[in-house]
This record gives sequence, structure tokens and C-alpha cells, in this order.
Amino acid sequence: MSQDIEELQAALRRFADERDWGQFHSPKNLAVSLSLEAAEVLEHFQWLTEAQSRTLDDARRQAVAHEIADVLLYLLQLSDRLGIDPMQAAREKLALNAERYPADKARGTSRKYTEL
Amino acid sequence: MSQDIEELQAALRRFADERDWGQFHSPKNLAVSLSLEAAEVLEHFQWLTEAQSRTLDDARRQAVAHEIADVLLYLLQLSDRLGIDPMQAAREKLALNAERYPADKARGTSRKYTEL
Amino acid sequence: MSQDIEELQAALRRFADERDWGQFHSPKNLAVSLSLEAAEVLEHFQWLTEAQSRTLDDARRQAVAHEIADVLLYLLQLSDRLGIDPMQAAREKLALNAERYPADKARGTSRKYTEL
Amino acid sequence: MSQDIEELQAALRRFADERDWGQFHSPKNLAVSLSLEAAEVLEHFQWLTEAQSRTLDDARRQAVAHEIADVLLYLLQLSDRLGIDPMQAAREKLALNAERYPADKARGTSRKYTEL
Repeated sequence: MSQDIEELQAALRRFADERDWGQFHSPKNLAVSLSLEAAEVLEHFQWLTEAQSRTLDDARRQAVAHEIADVLLYLLQLSDRLGIDPMQAAREKLALNAERYPADKARGTSRKYTEL
Repeated sequence: MSQDIEELQAALRRFADERDWGQFHSPKNLAVSLSLEAAEVLEHFQWLTEAQSRTLDDARRQAVAHEIADVLLYLLQLSDRLGIDPMQAAREKLALNAERYPADKARGTSRKYTEL
Repeated sequence: MSQDIEELQAALRRFADERDWGQFHSPKNLAVSLSLEAAEVLEHFQWLTEAQSRTLDDARRQAVAHEIADVLLYLLQLSDRLGIDPMQAAREKLALNAERYPADKARGTSRKYTEL
Repeated sequence: MSQDIEELQAALRRFADERDWGQFHSPKNLAVSLSLEAAEVLEHFQWLTEAQSRTLDDARRQAVAHEIADVLLYLLQLSDRLGIDPMQAAREKLALNAERYPADKARGTSRKYTEL
């Protein structure tokens, strides 16, 4: 487990404990919260073209950073409650994706996830 | 920036480059994908009670780990494209939350995010 | 097609035309918006228990009604752009569900959608 | 209330009653389900450009119709449980939007919802 991540998870546990929020932080509620925060990230891109999304101004980029932070904070809390190591899971998933989408077959096709 | 995270982001860049997927990976599309993967996490909890969500069996926990991995992989790619350090943003957001929700006022209330 | 729905879709077309918003209302953007508005419905239930969600007070119920309205407005606009009759599609899907989840096998099990 | 919609809501009540699913259909769970089905609509547009999303082939359009149906079925069930008339709420919201986004000020700007 990454030390940085473990430290942040420990800080989140203390934060929730000091506020007696453990009662609200069931994995189900944390999964709902993860989804809601991901929607808040997406909201910034709702009416932008893809091209515009590649050239955000600083104010927008900073606002998106705050929402990405919220997603990550819930992801770390959910992982912690479930005893999942998110970095390890991510590395395993990337290795799996490398098998599922061989570079020579997947090159340049947007059908990647559905039809390969 | 966490070294573990930087290494994973570099691996994700190589993965996308080898498949010529950069054209699909506009921040807008990555934000859509982040939201969709968060929904796949939530889908595991759709019909569970909160109590059931606190005691997942191993098969379900493993399945949730894979979906959490997908969320994290898109979060890292989106952050990378936007030049955002997600761990730094998360630490800043947690510090901000500590100011917004003082422990003595926020203790044990579920109204935390909306009405405090 | 339901006459009420057709009238509302026509009003939405006029509304978008008068503001020259058709350029933003690609099916992709409308699908993003549908998802974001559904998240705003869900946000009202984020920290409620299921039991609490069954007994909303009037203020909350009115707020949820406004968010449900937003979901429906985007659903009707997306359907209209794609030439889909949403009521007809819903009736067909309900008939399909009746075949997929026979009452005698599906009774009282929360595994309904995943494992039946 | 639209008669078509009332009939469909009555059919959905019978469907849930015959399967004893009322226990799972708390407004909270229905709101989660609404959000998940909206994500399934969005998934069809994940890797399409906006231009591609305007010209779906028939197979894709039919698949999207089924997902839109699922969104509408949950929207009607949630509305029914909460005693909300969704068509009336939608008409009220459209009238409100006409006030908030006057045609002359909102014409042709994508900033419509955030900065007007």
C-alpha cells in the first residue's frame, strides 16, 4: 500500500471519528457519495465541446481539482471500510486491460470497451 | 506527488499511446467515464441494505475492488490530462472540510453537507 | 404517443429554438445532462436511511419534485431528438421484465436483477 | 395527471406487489436505481463524438430506447411512492426555466446554467 494513501486514509478515519460520522458511512452510502461527486466533476464538462475540455482556464481547472479531490476522498474511505487496497487493485486492473485490449487490435478504435 | 501514483499515471499514458486512444481521451470523455465507473461501483449496493453493505462476502468484495480500480484509473488519467495532483488536491480538500465542519458542531448529524 | 407528452416535447423544442440551444443539445450532451439531473435527485437521499426516505417532509418532497422534473425534461428532449417514443418503450420494457422476472421465482428476493 | 402515465404507474405497482418488491423499493433505493439507469443511457454515448451521437444507427437507437425506458420506469415508481405528479412538475419547471433564462439573454450561450 502506498504510504501517502495510508496516511490520508488514517486522517479520514480520524476526521469521521471526531464527528461520529461512522454511522452514516456505510459502504452503501459511501458508494452513493462517490457517484454523486463523480457527477460534480462531470458537471463542469456538461456543455463544453471535447475540444474546449482540453483547454480549461485556470479557474475551471481549480474547480475541477476540488471535485476530483472529493471523488478521491470517498474512494479512499470506501476502500478503507472494505479492506481494499485501491492502488493494488488499479495495477491489477491495468494488467488485465492489457490482456483484454491488445495494442495491435485495439489501436485507434473507439469500440474498445464494448465490441473488441 | 506520490511516486506510486506517478508511476501508475506513466503506465496509463503508455497504455493509451500504444493504442492511439489519446484522441478519445478528452477530459470531457474521461469525466463521463469516471462517472460511469462510479455507477458500476454503486450498482453492487443497489438492493443491499446499509447493514448488508457492511458485511460483503469475498466474491462481492473482489468485484467491488475491480470497479473501484476502474474509477481510480480514470481519475488518474483525468488528473494527468489536466495537470492536477490528485493527492495534493485531496489533502487540501480535507483541510478545508475540517474548517467547514468543526467537530463540535458536526458531531452525529447527517445534515452535515447541506445545512451546517 | 401520449398527447400530454407530445405537447411538452413541442414546448421544449420551442424553448430550445428560441434560445438557439440546439447546437448544445446533441444526444450525447442530453445523455450527460440526464445523468447529472438523476444525481441531483439522488443527492436528496444521500444521508437518509431507507426508512427516512419513506417519510419525507413537504419541503424535501417539493425539492425532489423539481429534480424529478429536470430528469423528465431531459428524458423527453433526448427521446425527441432520437425519435424514440418513451411511453411505448416503457410499456415494452415492462412486458419484457414480466417475462424475465416471473412472479413465482422473483418473489421477495433482492437478487432480482443480477442473479435470477 | 396524464391517464397514460397513471395506467403505467398502476401496472408498475401491481408488478412490484406480485413480486413482494415493495420492501426494496424505498425512495432511496429507487433514486439509486434512477441514477444507475441514467448511467446506462450515457454509456452508449461514452466514446461517441457529439456528431456521431446525432446519427445513431438503428441497433444503437433501439438499445438506447430500452435504457430510456428503464429510466422512465424508475422515475414513475419514485414519483408514485412520493406522491409527485411528474408531468405537472415538469410543466412547472419549464415555466420556471423560461423566467430564469430569458430568450434574449440566453441565446446561443453554453454558459446557460452556470453563469447567466
